[in-house]
Amino acid sequence: MLRELSAQECEAMLRRHRLGRVAMRDAAGAYVVPISYAWDQGIVYAHAAPGRKVQLMRRWPHVAFQLDEVEDASCWRSVLVRGRFEEIHDEEGRAHARMLLLKAFEGHLMSVTAGHGQRIHLADAVMFCIRPEEVTGRAEGL
Amino acid sequence: MLRELSAQECEAMLRRHRLGRVAMRDAAGAYVVPISYAWDQGIVYAHAAPGRKVQLMRRWPHVAFQLDEVEDASCWRSVLVRGRFEEIHDEEGRAHARMLLLKAFEGHLMSVTAGHGQRIHLADAVMFCIRPEEVTGRAEGL
Repeated sequence: MLRELSAQECEAMLRRHRLGRVAMRDAAGAYVVPISYAWDQGIVYAHAAPGRKVQLMRRWPHVAFQLDEVEDASCWRSVLVRGRFEEIHDEEGRAHARMLLLKAFEGHLMSVTAGHGQRIHLADAVMFCIRPEEVTGRAEGL
Repeated sequence: MLRELSAQECEAMLRRHRLGRVAMRDAAGAYVVPISYAWDQGIVYAHAAPGRKVQLMRRWPHVAFQLDEVEDASCWRSVLVRGRFEEIHDEEGRAHARMLLLKAFEGHLMSVTAGHGQRIHLADAVMFCIRPEEVTGRAEGL
């Protein structure tokens, strides 16, 4: 039975995961990469090495962020966040985002890394958030 | 240690999975949804209910298809297929795609379903493939 997830169920999934996938527009069509993130106060916080992904999101900030929990093809949950990429430039904001990521990853600084990007120290990373405009979820069998 | 996956490793991942995520352009930016698929002879075969996802891919056929295997933030593999959406219209091609999906899902017709779409019988579904233009993969700790 296919059903919509409630706002609370979407929020719970966003809280319990640490890795999602961000999809963005590119010149040809679309691009998608896994990212580590922290969810706080309704916002997705993440970091990235300067590179393709960041360039694309700066140019086309309307992105989609997706999470799923799959047991099999008829037993799964999926959450889709549609929202805006916002780069965090000010030092206070960067420090706050770093703190959230460190907390989410229990202080394993080196374990916070970009998916199809390069390993980078948090202090040198581009810090950004995805500010949701719409959060929806579907599930089947769960 | 971040490393590139070989073509053989990418192929092996595409063979062993049944669920991936397809990202596509939309009017605002990008959209991403999980899809069930079968990999055969270097091509991703899938089906969908007629709806938003199909409309978007018809309009912007250059899509990205992604798979990952994650143990934790420093131990994962990810494959990215960039390619073209191609709808399968002829009955012979549709029958072939249906057969591949049935085989991949061991005959559980009802278990083949679209992620953020609606449940639909294979016979009534839009059948399509994603023809890869580029397949790349990264891994860390695996």
